[in-house]
Order: sequence, then C-alpha cells, then structure tokens
Amino acid sequence: MMPEPVLEEIRDEVMNWNGSGMSVMELSHRSPIFRTIVEDAESALRELMSIPNEYKVLFIQGGGTLQFAMVPWNLMKNGRAVYIDSGIWSKKAADEARKYGEVIIGASEAASNYIRIPDCSKMEIPSDADYVYICENETINGLTWRELPDTKGHPLVSDQSSMFLSEPRDVSKYAMIYAGVQKNVGPSGMVIAIMREDFIPKEVDPKMPVYLSYDTHAKTGSGYNTPNGWSIYCCGKVIHHLIKTGGLAAAAERNAEKAKIVYDFLESSKLFKSPVEPESRSVMNIPFVTGSKDLDAEVGAAAERAGLIGLKGHPSVGGLRASLYNAMPKEGAVALVDFLHSFEKEHGK
Amino acid sequence: MMPEPVLEEIRDEVMNWNGSGMSVMELSHRSPIFRTIVEDAESALRELMSIPNEYKVLFIQGGGTLQFAMVPWNLMKNGRAVYIDSGIWSKKAADEARKYGEVIIGASEAASNYIRIPDCSKMEIPSDADYVYICENETINGLTWRELPDTKGHPLVSDQSSMFLSEPRDVSKYAMIYAGVQKNVGPSGMVIAIMREDFIPKEVDPKMPVYLSYDTHAKTGSGYNTPNGWSIYCCGKVIHHLIKTGGLAAAAERNAEKAKIVYDFLESSKLFKSPVEPESRSVMNIPFVTGSKDLDAEVGAAAERAGLIGLKGHPSVGGLRASLYNAMPKEGAVALVDFLHSFEKEHGK
Repeated sequence: MMPEPVLEEIRDEVMNWNGSGMSVMELSHRSPIFRTIVEDAESALRELMSIPNEYKVLFIQGGGTLQFAMVPWNLMKNGRAVYIDSGIWSKKAADEARKYGEVIIGASEAASNYIRIPDCSKMEIPSDADYVYICENETINGLTWRELPDTKGHPLVSDQSSMFLSEPRDVSKYAMIYAGVQKNVGPSGMVIAIMREDFIPKEVDPKMPVYLSYDTHAKTGSGYNTPNGWSIYCCGKVIHHLIKTGGLAAAAERNAEKAKIVYDFLESSKLFKSPVEPESRSVMNIPFVTGSKDLDAEVGAAAERAGLIGLKGHPSVGGLRASLYNAMPKEGAVALVDFLHSFEKEHGK
Repeated sequence: MMPEPVLEEIRDEVMNWNGSGMSVMELSHRSPIFRTIVEDAESALRELMSIPNEYKVLFIQGGGTLQFAMVPWNLMKNGRAVYIDSGIWSKKAADEARKYGEVIIGASEAASNYIRIPDCSKMEIPSDADYVYICENETINGLTWRELPDTKGHPLVSDQSSMFLSEPRDVSKYAMIYAGVQKNVGPSGMVIAIMREDFIPKEVDPKMPVYLSYDTHAKTGSGYNTPNGWSIYCCGKVIHHLIKTGGLAAAAERNAEKAKIVYDFLESSKLFKSPVEPESRSVMNIPFVTGSKDLDAEVGAAAERAGLIGLKGHPSVGGLRASLYNAMPKEGAVALVDFLHSFEKEHGK
C-alpha cells in the first residue's frame, strides 16, 4: 500500500512534473532535472534514517533475488560468510550464496519450523568470515529481530525488505542494509542498498557482470545505466511523507498499535493462533492458523468475499497472514479483527 | 516520450485501477488481478508484433546492461559467438561478452568511426558459433540495419532497444530480440525479451545467479520474483495504443515522415550535416554536426533556451542528436528544423 496523499500528488503530477511539461516517466536519466529527483530521494532518506556520511545509498534493479547473489559475490573476499537461518527468505539467500563461497549457518530454527528468531548468543564466527547475514524481518514466517546478533566485530549485512522504514534503526551498526522497496516504500522493481563505503569492493571477480558490482552503482550515483526512475520518484515522495508525519519513531508507534490490535485478538481467540513466540513476532507480517487447513482456506475465501484481500498465507507455508505495512491505517487492523471475531462466533467457538 | 492519451489514462487510474480501489503500484505480484495485467501486456505485444507461438515473452529488470551479460552467459554453449561492431552499444555488448567466451568480430566499421552499417556479405562464421549478435539501431551513432545480416543458419540475437516497435519486424527471423523499454514503450527499469523457446537453455553455469537465467523468467511467466509491475502496466497501455492507431506499419509511416523532415533539412543545410551515409541512417536517432565543437555546443545551448531539450549528443561522441521516438509528433520534427534553419540564417550561412 502507498499513502493516499502521496498517490494524489503522483496523480496530479503524472502528466506534468514540476512545470516541466513532461512526465517523470519521460525524463532522460542523464537530464539535470532527473538527477534532481534522484538526489532528492537520497537526501530525504539520509535525513529520515540519519544515515552517516560514510555510507552510500544505491538504487539497484532486480529485487532481493539479485541481492542474494550480489551480496556474496561482491563481499565474500575470504570465501566464507555466516548466515542465520530464521525462515524462508534467509534460507533462500543462503542457498544462492553457496554458489560463491562457503556458507556457515551460525544458528538455525529450522528444527522448530521457525517459531522464534535463532539464539545467537553462543554463535561461533570464524575469524576470517567476511560478514554475518540476517533477514531482519521474515515476511512469510512472521519473525523479527528485536536485538541484532553480536557479530564480534564482523560486518553485519541485513535484508530489511519487509520492515524497511517501519521503525528506527541505527545504520552505523550495519555494514550493509538492503531492501526491496515494494513492501513499505514504493513501486516494485527496485532495491535500496545502504552500504558503508569501505565495504564496497573496488575489485571483483572478472567474470561478474558489470551491473552486479556494487562499485558500478556507487561510483556513478546509481546512474551507470538507466535506473528505475519512476520507483525512485515515488519512493522519494513516500520518504518525504514519512518525514512530514513524524519520522520513523512515529511510524513505529503507529505500527506497534496496529500489530497489538491483531496480536491481542489472537491471544484471546479460541479459534486462531499465532505460531510465533511473542518475543520474535513481526510487527509487519502476522501469520496465524486455525489448526485445520480446510478451515484456513475457508477463512481466506470468506475474507476475500468481505473485501479483505491478500489474507492467504504464502503458498510455501499455507495458513493465513495479515500484512500491516506502513501505509495500512489502524482501521485496516480493526476491520480484520472484526471479521475474524465474527467468523469465530459463527463457527461456534 | 509517451503518448498523451496513454498518460491521461494512467493519471485517471493511478488511484483506482479498474474499480479495484487500489493503485497498480499496490497490487501484489501474485494477485490474480496483477497477473491479468501481465498477461494482457504480453498478449497485446503478441498481437502487435505477430509473435509466433514458439516464442516466449519475458519481462526482466536490469536494462540492456544486464542483457549484455545474460546473452553470452546463457547462450554461449560452445563458448564463442559473432558480434557485429556497428557502434557504441554493440561494442559495449561485445566487451561484456568477452567475460563469458570468445567474441569474434564478424565485421566492423570502427575504422570509419561508424559512418555506415558494416558490410556482412563476406562474413565468415565458425560452424560452432552459438549466435550472431547485432545492435539493430545504434542510438548514439545513429545507424540502423535496413537488412538483417545473413547468419548462415546461426541464431540471430538483436538488441532493438532504441527502435523497438518503431516499424514492423518479422520475429521468426530472430532467435532472440530484446529491448530496454524506456525509449519507445514505457517507463525505465525493464527489458522485454522475445526468445524462441528452444533457444532458452534449461541448464546454465552453476555459478549463474538465479535471476540471470532466462529459464527462471520463462518458466514462471516473469513472476519468479516481484517484477517491475508499473512498467509492465504502462507498456501494456502503450502497446494497446499502437494497435489502436494502425499497428507497426502505421507507426513506421509516421516515423519515416518525421525523419525525412530532418534529413531533408540536413541535406540542404550549409551549416549542419549528418555524419552517417544515407542507406544506414536511423529513423529514430539523428546525429548531426556543424564541424566545430564550439558551434555544436552553442547550438545545443540555444536549443535549450528555445525549449528544445535533449539535443546535445551523447557525452562519448559529442555533436548534436535529435531523437524522434514513436511518441514524438511530426510537429516536434518541424519545430526542430525551424529552429536549426533560423540558427543557420543568424550565423550567416
């Protein structure tokens, strides 16, 4: 979802951006006015997240899927890295990383089927490990890191795709943050990567496509080739909207309030329950189940008839899942709980 | 540029697509309504270009730059391919391809500084060459292939980025056509690839990122991960608009008329001239020079003051360049010639 006032602004500008007589979709990526849009989006993000000067902000196409390859291929200088297995997306990232070097699973909750974030307190990290990788919010499994793992001085790389800009984070604790923008920021087809400059290798495998080297994007202001200009433009608008509405602290409060409405209901429900332990529960993605696959499917279908779409869980895990991204208003969480409450009553629980 | 009626439709739908109450930018890429948009764009393109059934249509992020790597890495099964050196973009593609195998330059006009499309009539092609690669319209140098090279039965791969959908092409003559959409179709951040199904390898280098395998996109309907949905949506609109306005034959007539206005002027001018020989001249991109770098720069600046932006040549070659993409009306070509004519008179020629 995108904020309504942002969509209104976009509608009003779609045929004529800033008096230029042109649509943003028509601007050449080398034109000075287009560069203004890129620089504005970047500087707004720097303000919103308090990004230190020694970090680069990159706009890259190809989604998280391409990052799963770019991260290890660029960053495994010693050929090994530690991945924390917290669910489906960290597992996908680790699988792709094995093409480029040794993946050490530092901790895993696969055995519990991911009911909590893995305990990393006793994690052993080889001294030559290039980085520690986490997926900070597991979209499908509904888990969030409440405290970052102790990497013992090793660089931390975090996939924040489904919680980016949902609450404040101290960027200086990471060597790299990346996020597909389509969950919380803007239209799909782009990743924002925030990387400490000294973490970007200048020399890469000679077989690496030029597009896949972070340095290609870093040294050209994400302008080596034509970027996804429309997404950069829309993301800039959403970032400004977040600044205007109180920044990330205010966003965190709104998100916590929405999530509490749903989790409180699940705790009190006799029909529905969250499979995730309280201290690992995501504020963005809330999976829940009835315990019966047929009944889960019935709930999903009834929800759709009631106008609550997208409640079915990811095909790989089934069940149900509510996503409460930034732009979802509190009323959305209330409407969901009202619906689930009615369904439960009708089913005699 | 995009057609005005298409931009109007997009504006009217931006907040509420087809009565869904949602923006296209907000649709999940797995939702049935989003799949409708993808399938509609594909079927419209199949109609417009008469794409045979045995060809796949793929929507891929990363621009032409990523294709420069994906083409050789996927398609060099025997480890060698023939590239025709017709200008800056085919040269860039060949440079990237050398990372993945042997590049044989079948013909080149580098010596003439690309004043014509290379003569390929005596080209030797090794029997095990995996494909012959051309850039069908050299955007920066302003050259177009009027007749495809005889590949002696080898698959032909063509980068059509800057002439895609500008005139009819017989798709069955190619093994693969690809085009960055940002010149003639829709917003940047996407390539459309049209590939003969038997040309898509099922097995690739195990080190290849999953995103870079054509098979990943072919077997998932371009839905392996979240695609650039906005670009697919806008491209679909532009393709429908082309169908409604007479198809590619009519587009070719309009484009030829516009180009003739500019080339006729250049032929008659005492100040400006085209560096390209008549039979290789592009209908889309028309570079021209005065013979003096300072005067070229003066023309570019004066044009900008007169509201004709984007007339400066690419930084790598200098000079001046007019781009007459599909959506540029005839009036644009007339206004350009009027301006150049006045400039010439004021400079006493």
